[in-house]
Amino acid sequence: MQRLDLDLGNDAYPILIGADLLAQPDLILPYIRSSQVAIVSNTTVAPLYMSKVAKPLRHAGKSVLEIVLPDGEEFKTWETLNLIFDALLRARCERKVTLIALGGGVIGDMTGFAAASYQRGVPFIQIPTTLLSQVDSSVGGKTGINHPLGKNMIGAFYQPRIVLADMSTLNTLPDREYSAGLAEVIKYGLLGDCEFFCWLEQNMPALLARDTAALEYAVHRSCWNKAKIVAADERESGVRALLNLGHTFGHAIEAGMGYGVWLHGEAVAAGMAMAADLSCRMGWFSAEELARTLALMQAAKLPVKGARLGAQRYIELMSSDKKVEAGTIRFVLLKRIGEAVMHANVDAGLLQKVLEQRVADELPA
Amino acid sequence: MQRLDLDLGNDAYPILIGADLLAQPDLILPYIRSSQVAIVSNTTVAPLYMSKVAKPLRHAGKSVLEIVLPDGEEFKTWETLNLIFDALLRARCERKVTLIALGGGVIGDMTGFAAASYQRGVPFIQIPTTLLSQVDSSVGGKTGINHPLGKNMIGAFYQPRIVLADMSTLNTLPDREYSAGLAEVIKYGLLGDCEFFCWLEQNMPALLARDTAALEYAVHRSCWNKAKIVAADERESGVRALLNLGHTFGHAIEAGMGYGVWLHGEAVAAGMAMAADLSCRMGWFSAEELARTLALMQAAKLPVKGARLGAQRYIELMSSDKKVEAGTIRFVLLKRIGEAVMHANVDAGLLQKVLEQRVADELPA
Repeated sequence: MQRLDLDLGNDAYPILIGADLLAQPDLILPYIRSSQVAIVSNTTVAPLYMSKVAKPLRHAGKSVLEIVLPDGEEFKTWETLNLIFDALLRARCERKVTLIALGGGVIGDMTGFAAASYQRGVPFIQIPTTLLSQVDSSVGGKTGINHPLGKNMIGAFYQPRIVLADMSTLNTLPDREYSAGLAEVIKYGLLGDCEFFCWLEQNMPALLARDTAALEYAVHRSCWNKAKIVAADERESGVRALLNLGHTFGHAIEAGMGYGVWLHGEAVAAGMAMAADLSCRMGWFSAEELARTLALMQAAKLPVKGARLGAQRYIELMSSDKKVEAGTIRFVLLKRIGEAVMHANVDAGLLQKVLEQRVADELPA
Repeated sequence: MQRLDLDLGNDAYPILIGADLLAQPDLILPYIRSSQVAIVSNTTVAPLYMSKVAKPLRHAGKSVLEIVLPDGEEFKTWETLNLIFDALLRARCERKVTLIALGGGVIGDMTGFAAASYQRGVPFIQIPTTLLSQVDSSVGGKTGINHPLGKNMIGAFYQPRIVLADMSTLNTLPDREYSAGLAEVIKYGLLGDCEFFCWLEQNMPALLARDTAALEYAVHRSCWNKAKIVAADERESGVRALLNLGHTFGHAIEAGMGYGVWLHGEAVAAGMAMAADLSCRMGWFSAEELARTLALMQAAKLPVKGARLGAQRYIELMSSDKKVEAGTIRFVLLKRIGEAVMHANVDAGLLQKVLEQRVADELPA
C-alpha cells in the first residue's frame, strides 16, 4: 500500500493506494466520528462493493444508510443530487452524518457536493472505484453537478477526510472505462512530468494488463502530480488551470455530443490530441513529440481525434466553458512533453484547422 | 454611518450601517473587481431599489444583469435557485462575476448559496433591505435553501465581500415584516446582552417609529452581538448554537403551518416566548423576567404564543431540526435576561405543558 498525505491548510487528508483496501475497514473507521453513515453508490457499483463496505461498518456499530443512484454522467443533475438529500432527510440524518462516495467520478462529485451542502456541510470519505476517479477526483476537492447549459457549473470546493483507492476495484471496470482513466494518467505526464511520460511509454502493456504494482505506481504518481499543482493553487486561479489540459476541447465534445455519448476520459484524450496538434501547428511542440503523444494514447486504446462538430460549434461550446475569462477562450497548450502553459490568444486560423482536421466521425468504443 | 469590521480568518469584511447608503455607489465599487455584476432581487424589492443600485454600477462601466425572483419564503427552493443559475449561464457570466443580493433574508440566503455554488464559488455582496436580514443574515455566512422535509437543509457557509445595511430601505417595509425583524433584535438582548435588552425596553417607541438613529444603534449592536458569537465559533459547533434561541420552536411553527403563513421573525418571537416560558417552568427564569420578555415582544407587536399544532406534532417537527444530535432535541433556554444556555434533557412533562399552553389559534397579522 502507498500513502500520500495532502496538506491543503485546514483540510489535510491521506490518500491510501493499494490492493484489497475495502477488506480492511480499520483503514477508514478512525475517520468516521459519527454514528450515522450514508454510503452513496450507483446501480452498477453497489451490487459489487456496497456490502463489502457497509457490513464491517455495521459490525463496528455504525448505523449505515445505503443510497443507490442511477449510473451515468447524464444523471449528474440536481434531480439525482436531490435523491441523496431526500434519503438523508427521510432517514433523519443529522449534522454529523458521514457520507461515503463509493463509485466513479460522477458519484464522487455528487456525493462531495451533497456533503458540502447537506445542512451546510458534513464530513465525507471518497472510495473511488474507477481509474479516472482515483487519479482525478481524489485530489483537489472539486465537487458538483452539471447544468443543462454547462458541465460542472454548480458545485463547491470541498475536501474529503480520507480517500481509499483500492486497485482491486479496477478489475471489474469495463475496458472502455479503464482506458478513459488512462487518459488522465497520461495527462499528468504530458503536462508536467516528462519522466512519468517515459515510464508510461514503457509500462503501458503492464497497465493495460491491470498489473497491480504498475497501477499503484501510476495512481500514486498521478495523485502526487495533481497534489503538487493543487497545493500551489487551491482555488484554481493560476497554475491549477494546467490540469485542464485537453478539457476545453473535451468538454465541448461531451456537451456537443450529449453527455454520456463519449466518456469524459475519452473526450479528454481527444482534447489532448487536439491541444497537442494545435501546439504543434504553432511551432511549440515538435512533430516527433506529437507522434509520441498520439502513440501513447493509441497504446492506451484512446481516441486521438475529436468528434466532428464543426469549427463554429466547437468555438461556441468552448466559449461557455468555466475557463473563459473576459470573453477569450484560454487554452492549455504544450511547450514540450512535460511542460504545459496557458495561452489565450490562439491564432484563429490554426484553431480552425485543428477543429476541422483533428476530428473524425466514428464514436469511441 | 456606522461601520463594523468582521474578521473571520480569511474572510474579513465590513458591514456599513446608515441612511441613504444606496445613493453612495462608491461604498461598494471598491469591492467589485469583476466587470460582470448580477443583482438578484425579488418582485417586491426590485421596483423600489433595483435601478438605484444598477444605474451607478452601469455608469461605472460594469455590465449589470438584473435577476428578479418571485417573492416569499415558499420560493426559497431549488427551483428558484436554479432561475439564478439559468440567468447567469444564459448571460454567459464567468467565474469572476460578482453577485449582489438585494432584498430580505430569502434573497440573501439564495443569492449567497448561488454565489457559493456557481462555478464552485464567485464573490458576492449583501444589500439586506429588511430589518431581519440586516441583523441576521449580515453576519455569519449562512446561506441556503429549504427542502420539502426541512428548512435551510441545503446550503453553505459563505461570506460576502461587504454588507450594506441601508436604514432608508426600512421605510418601505410593511409593519408586520418590520416587527418580525425586531424579534431578532430582541433576541440579541435576551440571549447575551442585558444592557441592550434594557435599552430596547426604553427605545421600543423610537424603533417602532423607525427613527434612523435608534435603528442604526440597534442594527449595529445586534450585528456586533452576533459577530462576537460567530467569531468564536464560525462552523456552529458550540456557542453559536445560542443564536438559535426561539428557533427550535419557531422552525416547528413555520414547518407545521406551511412556510410563509407565519413570518420567520414572528415564529422566532413565539419560539422565544415558549423558550422563556419553559425556562420559567424549570425554575431558571423568574416570573418577572418572563413578564418583561413578553411585554417587550408585545411592545414590538410580536406574537407571544405559538401556533396550536399539538404537542406531538411539535416534537416530531423539532426532532428533524438541524440542532438535533444523537436523537435528542437540544433547546436554547434562558438562565436570566442576557444569558442563554444549551440544554438537551428537558423534562418531557414541562415541555408538554408549554406546547399545550403557550399556544393560540389566531394567526399573526
